[in-house]
Amino acid sequence: MRTHVSSELKSAVGKSVTLAGWVHDVRLLGTINFVILRDSAGTVQLVVKKDAPPDVVNVVSSLHQEDVVEVSGTVVESKEAKSGIEVIPSSLVVLAKAQTPLPLDPRWITPAHLDTRLEWRSLDLRRRENRALFAVQSSLQRAMESFLVKAGFVRAWTPSVLGGVSEGGADVFKIDFFGKPAFLRQDPQLHRQLLIASGFERVYDLGPSWRAEPSDQPTHLAEYRTLAPELAFIKDERDVMKLEQNMCVAGIKHIVKECAAELEVLGKQIQVPKAPFPELRFPKVYDILKELGKTLPRGSDLDKESEKLLAGWVREKKKHDFFFLNRFPSAVKPFYVMRVDDEPQWARSVDLVYKGLEMSSGGQREHRHEKIVAQIGEKGLSAPSLSWFTDVFKYGVPPHGGFSIGIERLTMKLLDMTNIKEAVLFPRYVTRLSP
Amino acid sequence: MRTHVSSELKSAVGKSVTLAGWVHDVRLLGTINFVILRDSAGTVQLVVKKDAPPDVVNVVSSLHQEDVVEVSGTVVESKEAKSGIEVIPSSLVVLAKAQTPLPLDPRWITPAHLDTRLEWRSLDLRRRENRALFAVQSSLQRAMESFLVKAGFVRAWTPSVLGGVSEGGADVFKIDFFGKPAFLRQDPQLHRQLLIASGFERVYDLGPSWRAEPSDQPTHLAEYRTLAPELAFIKDERDVMKLEQNMCVAGIKHIVKECAAELEVLGKQIQVPKAPFPELRFPKVYDILKELGKTLPRGSDLDKESEKLLAGWVREKKKHDFFFLNRFPSAVKPFYVMRVDDEPQWARSVDLVYKGLEMSSGGQREHRHEKIVAQIGEKGLSAPSLSWFTDVFKYGVPPHGGFSIGIERLTMKLLDMTNIKEAVLFPRYVTRLSP
Repeated sequence: MRTHVSSELKSAVGKSVTLAGWVHDVRLLGTINFVILRDSAGTVQLVVKKDAPPDVVNVVSSLHQEDVVEVSGTVVESKEAKSGIEVIPSSLVVLAKAQTPLPLDPRWITPAHLDTRLEWRSLDLRRRENRALFAVQSSLQRAMESFLVKAGFVRAWTPSVLGGVSEGGADVFKIDFFGKPAFLRQDPQLHRQLLIASGFERVYDLGPSWRAEPSDQPTHLAEYRTLAPELAFIKDERDVMKLEQNMCVAGIKHIVKECAAELEVLGKQIQVPKAPFPELRFPKVYDILKELGKTLPRGSDLDKESEKLLAGWVREKKKHDFFFLNRFPSAVKPFYVMRVDDEPQWARSVDLVYKGLEMSSGGQREHRHEKIVAQIGEKGLSAPSLSWFTDVFKYGVPPHGGFSIGIERLTMKLLDMTNIKEAVLFPRYVTRLSP
Repeated sequence: MRTHVSSELKSAVGKSVTLAGWVHDVRLLGTINFVILRDSAGTVQLVVKKDAPPDVVNVVSSLHQEDVVEVSGTVVESKEAKSGIEVIPSSLVVLAKAQTPLPLDPRWITPAHLDTRLEWRSLDLRRRENRALFAVQSSLQRAMESFLVKAGFVRAWTPSVLGGVSEGGADVFKIDFFGKPAFLRQDPQLHRQLLIASGFERVYDLGPSWRAEPSDQPTHLAEYRTLAPELAFIKDERDVMKLEQNMCVAGIKHIVKECAAELEVLGKQIQVPKAPFPELRFPKVYDILKELGKTLPRGSDLDKESEKLLAGWVREKKKHDFFFLNRFPSAVKPFYVMRVDDEPQWARSVDLVYKGLEMSSGGQREHRHEKIVAQIGEKGLSAPSLSWFTDVFKYGVPPHGGFSIGIERLTMKLLDMTNIKEAVLFPRYVTRLSP
C-alpha cells in the first residue's frame, strides 16, 4: 500500500512506508545524500547515509532529476526539513529514467517562457504552482456543479457537432459530416433550450465549445469549456441572474474553504464575493460611460475598454469585483433573446463581468414561436435553416433562461492570471495545436 | 413558491399549492372537467367542476394537449386518482399555447417510429419513459464519477481538437484549424497519458469523442461520450481492471438504490453485478471459440459474433453478464499498448464486455520511450508525427494504464435497449445531424 506525501505521512513517524514519485532534486555529498521526492501531493526529503543498504547507496549515486522511483523506508522526525519529517530508505527502485538535460526545469530554478512551457507542457505541469492551479479549477467546477445538482438541475449532454449555423456563421470550425456541411458549436445554448422544450425544467451542460477566431489575445482560446445551466418557469431574467450569482458565490466559498494549501502555493488571498452582485442596465450604462469620458452611441455594443471602465466604476462605487450588465440593445444580440415587451429595443440579455472581463452571456430567451420567427427575419437569417430549432416552439415551451460561464475565464480572474492559456491543460489557439 | 408533482405534493393534502407544467391530457365532460398536468417529476389530475371560478372554467374549456399552464389550487384526497390526490384549481393561467395536431404524442397512445421520434426529439423526450431513461443515465454517470473522486481521481479536460492522427487516421472528422489539418479525437487517451507524464497520478476525462464511420448500426454513434480514468504506479493491467470493475459495480449499485421509481417506469429489474468479473485471456479465447464452433486464426482480432459467443459462454459457465478480455494480440492493437515482456505477441490490452457488447478498451500502456518508438515503427507510423506525444516519455513517466467506457453503451445494455441512438438526447450518426 502506497502512502502519499501528505499529512498522512506526517502522522507516520517511526513507521515504515512505501512512496513513489519523481526525483525533484538530488544532492550527493558523499557521506550523506539527499533526494527530494515529489508526488502529486507534495515533496519529502530522503536521507541516504554511507551506512544505508549498498543497493540504496548505489541507486542514489546514479539518480537524476525527474527519474521515477519507488522507495520504502522509515519516517523520522527532522529539525531541518520544512515539513518536520524525512524518510530513511531501506529500498529504492528506479521505475523510469529521465534523460538529461531537461528541456524545462520543474523546480523552476530556471523559469521558462510561456511558449516553451506550453511546448513542454507535461514538464511544466509537474510544477507545484500548476498542480495547485488545476486543483483549484477542478474544485471550483465541481463545487458549482454540486450547487446546481442540489438545486435540482440535471446534467445533460448536448451535441458538439451542429448542422445549422446558430449565430450568423462567423468564426466557426467547419466539418465535413458524411458529405453534409457541419460545424463545431460555439455555445451549447440552442440545445439547452430544446431540452427546456423537452420538459427538463432544470438542466445544465458542461463541456467544450469552439470559436475559430484567429486571435492569440491573452483572453482568447479556440477551444474552451463552459458550465451552462438553463431553467424553465422563470419570472424574468432576474431569476437567471440570481442563480448565476449564487452559483459563483458557492464555488468561490468552496475554494476559500477547501483549497487553502493550493492558494498558499499560488500566493493568493481570495474574498468570497457578497450577494447581491450590482446590476447595471442599458441605457443608463451609456450615461455612466460618458461620465467616465467615453461616449458611445445609444444602441451600440460595449467594447472591452468599456467593460473595464465600468468595472472600475463598480469597484469604486459599489466595492464589488462582479457586476451584471442587463438590457443590452436588442440590435447587437442574437435572434433568440427575449426583448422587453414595451421597450423592444432593449433585451433581457445579461452579461456577468468579473474583474473587468466578461464571464458569461445569458438572460431570458424568447419562448413564443411567432416572436422567434419574427426576430429571425429581422436579423436577416433564414427561417427554414433554423426550423430544426424553432419548430418545437409551436408545441408549448415555458418561459426560460440560462447562461454559459467560461471555466477558464473564471479561473483566470479568480487567480489574477495574465494569460488564459495557462488556465488550460493543453490549450488550443491560432498558433497552437499540440501537444 | 412552486411545488413539484412528487411526494411533496402528496403530503400537502388540504393545502394550497402552485404548480406549473404541461397539459398531458384533458377530458371535458361539461359538468366536470379533468386535466392531467405533467411536470418533470410526474403527473397529477386537476378537477374543474361547474362551480369553479368562471376564469378557470373558461380557460379549461379551451385547453389543448401540451399547453403550458400555471395552476394554483387546493390538494384534496381522491379515491379514483392513482396517486391518491387531485388538485382543485382556484386559478389557471396559460403560459404557452400548443398547436394541434401534435406531430408526436407524448402520451404515447399513438407510438411513433424511431426516426419520427428523433426528428421531433423534444416532443419525444417529454414521454415519461425517456425522462426515466435519462435520469438513470445521469445518475449512473454521476455515481461513477463520485466513485472516482473518492478514489483520489482529479477531473481533467483534455483537448477535443488534435493536430496529429492517433490511431492510423481512419474514420476521423477533419477540421481546418487556421490553415493546418486537424481532427476530432476518437478517444481522450493520449492526452490522459500526457497527464500521467505531467505527474497527475490519477485523472479522469469525461466528454465527447467522435468516429466518422458511415454506419447506422444499432450500436453506433458518430458522437459519443466516455468516462475515462488513467492511473499511475500500477503493478500491471489488473490494477486497471479492478478499478473498472469496482466503478461499474458502484454505478449500478447506486442505480438500484436511487432509481427505483425510474426503473419501475422502464419495467426493469437490475441486479448488482458480483465482483470479481470473469477474465478470459488470449490465446485461450481461441480455444473457447473453437469449442463453440467458431475457428479464428491465432493472432486475429475478435468480431462482434465472437464477442457474443463468448458472452453466452460466460453467462452459462460463470453466471455473469460482464467479463474482461485480456492479452489481445499485439498485432491488432495500437502502438501505445504495453506488451507482455516475455511473450510480446500478446498485449496487456483489455476490453470489458457487457451483455455481449464491448463497453471499453484499455489496459496497461507502454511507458518506456524506446519501446514506444519501436512499436510506432513496427506499426508503420511516422515517429516524427507522434513526437508531440512521445518526447516527454524521455523524461520519467511511471507505469500506468486506464480505460475509456462508453456512457451510451453502458446505458443501452443496462436497460436492455435495442438501439443506442435512444440513449442520446440528440444523437449524431451518418444520416442524422439535427435537431
